[in-house]
Parts: sequence; C-alpha cells; structure tokens
Amino acid sequence: MGLDYRVRCCPDGLVTDRRRRIKVLDCTIRDGGICNDWNFSDDLVQRTFRALSESGIDYMEIGYRTADGVFDRGDVGPWRFCDEEDLARVVEPGGIKLATMVDIGRVDAQVIPPRSDTVIDVVRIATYAHQMDSALSLLDHCLEQGYETFLNVMAVSVLAPDEVDTFLKRVAGSGVHNVALVDSFGALFPYHVRYLVHKYMNYLGEGIRVGVHFHNNQQQAFANSIVAIDEGVDFVDATVHGMGRGAGNCPLELLLFYLDNRRYDVRPVLELVADYADLRDDLRWGYHLPYAITGYYNIHPRTGIERMRQPDRYQVRELYEHLSPRLDDAAKAD
Amino acid sequence: MGLDYRVRCCPDGLVTDRRRRIKVLDCTIRDGGICNDWNFSDDLVQRTFRALSESGIDYMEIGYRTADGVFDRGDVGPWRFCDEEDLARVVEPGGIKLATMVDIGRVDAQVIPPRSDTVIDVVRIATYAHQMDSALSLLDHCLEQGYETFLNVMAVSVLAPDEVDTFLKRVAGSGVHNVALVDSFGALFPYHVRYLVHKYMNYLGEGIRVGVHFHNNQQQAFANSIVAIDEGVDFVDATVHGMGRGAGNCPLELLLFYLDNRRYDVRPVLELVADYADLRDDLRWGYHLPYAITGYYNIHPRTGIERMRQPDRYQVRELYEHLSPRLDDAAKAD
Repeated sequence: MGLDYRVRCCPDGLVTDRRRRIKVLDCTIRDGGICNDWNFSDDLVQRTFRALSESGIDYMEIGYRTADGVFDRGDVGPWRFCDEEDLARVVEPGGIKLATMVDIGRVDAQVIPPRSDTVIDVVRIATYAHQMDSALSLLDHCLEQGYETFLNVMAVSVLAPDEVDTFLKRVAGSGVHNVALVDSFGALFPYHVRYLVHKYMNYLGEGIRVGVHFHNNQQQAFANSIVAIDEGVDFVDATVHGMGRGAGNCPLELLLFYLDNRRYDVRPVLELVADYADLRDDLRWGYHLPYAITGYYNIHPRTGIERMRQPDRYQVRELYEHLSPRLDDAAKAD
Repeated sequence: MGLDYRVRCCPDGLVTDRRRRIKVLDCTIRDGGICNDWNFSDDLVQRTFRALSESGIDYMEIGYRTADGVFDRGDVGPWRFCDEEDLARVVEPGGIKLATMVDIGRVDAQVIPPRSDTVIDVVRIATYAHQMDSALSLLDHCLEQGYETFLNVMAVSVLAPDEVDTFLKRVAGSGVHNVALVDSFGALFPYHVRYLVHKYMNYLGEGIRVGVHFHNNQQQAFANSIVAIDEGVDFVDATVHGMGRGAGNCPLELLLFYLDNRRYDVRPVLELVADYADLRDDLRWGYHLPYAITGYYNIHPRTGIERMRQPDRYQVRELYEHLSPRLDDAAKAD
C-alpha cells in the first residue's frame, strides 16, 4: 500500500518526529465565516465544536471579537463577535482549547475581558506589519488578562525581506507565545515557505512557537503546510473541507491523513464533511480561476471574491489582463 | 509584488534554467475524457486545439487509440478512438504536436499505422509494470512506424522499490524517447516524487527524457509537479482547469503561471476556462473527499468515482472505514 515508500522516501528522520509533535488549529468558523458573514447555524457550530474536540484537534478558533460599531449586528452572524452568551449555547466544558481572533483596526481592549470571565483561552491578534504598534499594545493587554496569545502578521508576501526582519525583531521581544506566518493572498510557493520559516524561527528564537496559515489560491495550502512541518514549525492552521476566504485554506482532513498520528482521529471530522460540502456548492470556496489569478499576482483576493459573485465569473482572460501589473507598467511606459 | 521574494528564495540557481527548458503536455481531452466518456463537442476539441497551439504548449494528447471491440462506439465518444476522419475535423496543419495514448490490453498494432499516414506525431503507451512484455513489443512497432514514443508506467505508488528498479532497467534499453512517472492514484507526496524522479533519471540515463503525470486526490498534483521540475525532469503533464479522472490533474493554467516563460502565453488557455468550469459543475472532478480517501489509501480511484455518482457521496466516514486496509487487517487478526 505504498507504506514502504513512505518509510524509504522520508527525506530526513527528523520529519517523523516533527510530524508527531505538530499542533493543529482549526479556524473553520472564523476564516470560513468570511464566506457566509459568520451566519452558521448554532447546530453546525456546536457539532463542529464536538467533532474537533473528539478528534483531538488542539485549538478551535470560533470567530472574531470586534469593537462596537464596526459591523452592524443585523448584517453579520454572532461569530463575528463571540459574545459570551452565544459561546455558551454551543461550547461545553472540557472540550477543545478555544481561540478568538481580533483584527487590529476593528478591536479595542474592552472586548477582551479577564481570562477568568470567559470560555476563551487564546487570543489571536491579526495585524499588518505597519500596524505593529497597535498590535503590541493590544498584546500587552491580552497578556495582562491572562491569555495564551498569537500574533498573525498578515500579507507577508508583499513585504521586502528587510521589512520582515524588522517586525520579527520587534515581535521577538514582545512576550507573545506564538507567531503565525500568514499567506493572506495565497501567493507563496514551497520555496518561499522554506525561506520564511527559517527566518521566523531564527529571529524568534526558542521561546516563541511558530505556526503557519495558508490560503489555497494556487493549490499550495496543503503543500506549503507539509514544507513548513518539514522545516520544523510547531502548529498548522486548517479548516474543515478547506472552508475559508476565497480559495480557502489547508483542508483539515488532508492534514490529519498526512500527520497519521494516533493523537488525532479523523473520523469525527469526516462526519462534518457532508454539511460543509453542501455549503461549498453555494459559497464557492476552493479552486476557481479568479482566486488563482489574485494569488498569482500576489494581491488581496477581494477582486476575485467580487468576480465569483458575478455571472461572468469565468471570463478570466479579461480579469487576468485587467489586473496585470506588468500591463499597467507597460501602459505607463508608453 | 513579491517578485523580490521569488528571486531571493529560489533554492538553487539551476531551478530557473530547469523551469525555462521544461516541456508541457496537455492531456485534457484524453484524461479529462475519462470523466465524460470522451463526449466532447467537436467545437470544444477544436477550440482546445487552437488555444493550446496559440499558447505554445508543446504536446496535445487528443485521446486514445483502441482495438476494435473493446468499447462500443455507441457508448463512448470519438476521442476514445481518434480515427483519422475525426481528427481531420478538428486539427489544422502547423499546430501543436499531437499525441494519442494506447492502453496495453486494449490496443493492437493495427491501430498504429505508419507515421506518414496520420496527423499523430507521438504515441504514449500506458502500461502497468507487470505488462511490460506487451508494452515493449508495442513500443518496437511504434518505433518502426516512425513515432516519437512515451512509456507511461502506471500506479508506481503500489510498487516496491526493487520492482521499480526492475522495470526501469528494462525500459533503459528499449529505445523509447520519453518515460513518464505516473501517480495514477494521487497517492504521492513531494518526498516520494523526489525519490522516484532521482531513481528514474539515474536508471534511464541521458538518452531518455523523464516526465511526470500527477493526480490531484490530495491536492498535490501541482505541488508534485513543482518538485519534479526542481529535480530536473523534462516535461510535465497538465490539463485545462485540472480536468481528469477523479480529482483531476495538475491545472495547466497554474503550471503556466508558475513557469513564467515567454515561450508560453496563458491567455488562450484562460479563454477556455469558462467552458471547462461549466463541465466541472456537472462532472465533479477536483477536490472531493471520496477521491482524497482513495488517494490516501493508495488505491484505484474507481470506488471514489462510483461514490461521487451517488447522492450519499459525502457520507465519507463510512467510506473511510469501509475501505480501511488497517481495519481489514484488524478484523482478520480477530
């Protein structure tokens, strides 16, 4: 059954150990919620919570916390806010470790109460590199309140190497527990990932765990995760059936197959697939050319997302030519 | 736009040269035809021929040639046979190099006329390792008739390493021009690909070009192609929008984006995407759990294909448990 291959081909004996100690963070409701404005039924969120708990997944990111007034509560579902009363309806004591994300620019310290007043264990701070002052200030608040913390520095693919060095040096001394390498635009290939993972691990040192969050615009989310695991990261983000913004994320079920670790049981996750596959038919995450093109151009997926809502979604030659930075440059040169 | 990254992260200066000299073989109509029993309209096949020619793709595999009586011509479309009169309706002089595939067990020498009597330039012989006697005998016929030839040895993922060595030694002295490493079951990961590409290149030597044909069951078809390019193969198979059996193949458009070679123009391929995306909605190739599970188990995709035709296609926990070789073994041990 090819298992002989698996043993013989492993490039490095360490890889097996690395696979064994990896931690998995599911962000289906948080990142997948971008596809449906966080309008999941309570039933599906509860079944997802139970399945992830039963599967032995290490973290569930169940949504965002958001400052008042940024979103109209009539427009988006409860998982954009993660109020305690909403969480109480779906989570149960003794389950998986719970995380919420906060977006710098859409959050204030008030939405992060003391750790003892909430079922949330972990705060993940999503920030662009240029917002690092605000992010580190919010981080201090989260640490004081007693949370495990992550810094997810977005869109690293558009930064020059020295800009990456600069923010990593600041983060290294911040007291944060975990840092995620985030490919927001689905632009990275495995060789970029090797380069960046080395850089993150070198700059952040032993005391900070490194993880990865990939998007699948060019069908690299899972392949990039494999490379990151080989290079020694500590955790990987994934989602059920790959649900997530645009092309989506690394599929949790593929990651669990690959890790092949008795600590995880893929079967409860497989039971969720029917629900999420039906959602996919409607919401259209996954491999679609408009997302592939924004990934290739290393730009925000919003143009692809807008295009996927239109009936002409697959008239992609025009989209490719319209978005081309090279054609723009050529026009400017004329 | 991240181009700075692309330059800085490239693991090896040779890789750029390797990317530049790679040849691309499109097998949309041949492998994609497995999804719709080769019932493409003449119009779509002709537009595909023209687009691939215009894009600068090196080879188009336009279907199979098949011995009389193996398929009922009422059941399957013309591209299972590639009769000269069917080819004449869609191909034009001076276009792309044309290939047909033949399956050992479903072919006889009669369907391969002298090279001068056909528009076909290339014959690709698909064989399992255990059929190598027949394959090499047919190869001799194809060489006598004047064709460029390929041997595509299927399902290499189920062979033990010494079985691979054995067939490679025979193929090395066969006179064939090209050999494809074929992951029929979508079971291989990049580390398997590195191992096998090294082996193929070492055993086959300088005189035989090596290529790859990957399936996307575990979202590795494009990632595996990238690894194969890095390791120095000469050609890569791909299909428009990834159309192909089960989960499909490496998407041609992603490969062309990645190669970033002025020899290829992706735009005519992008114009085809609307047609193929509509077909995908109906025929359901791409990422679906039944295919992921057969890929993970390293078995033929037929069980996944049958399941995808049923309304319970996403009840995949049961499929996973039913197919599990480990559970079988456990049951036997009881």
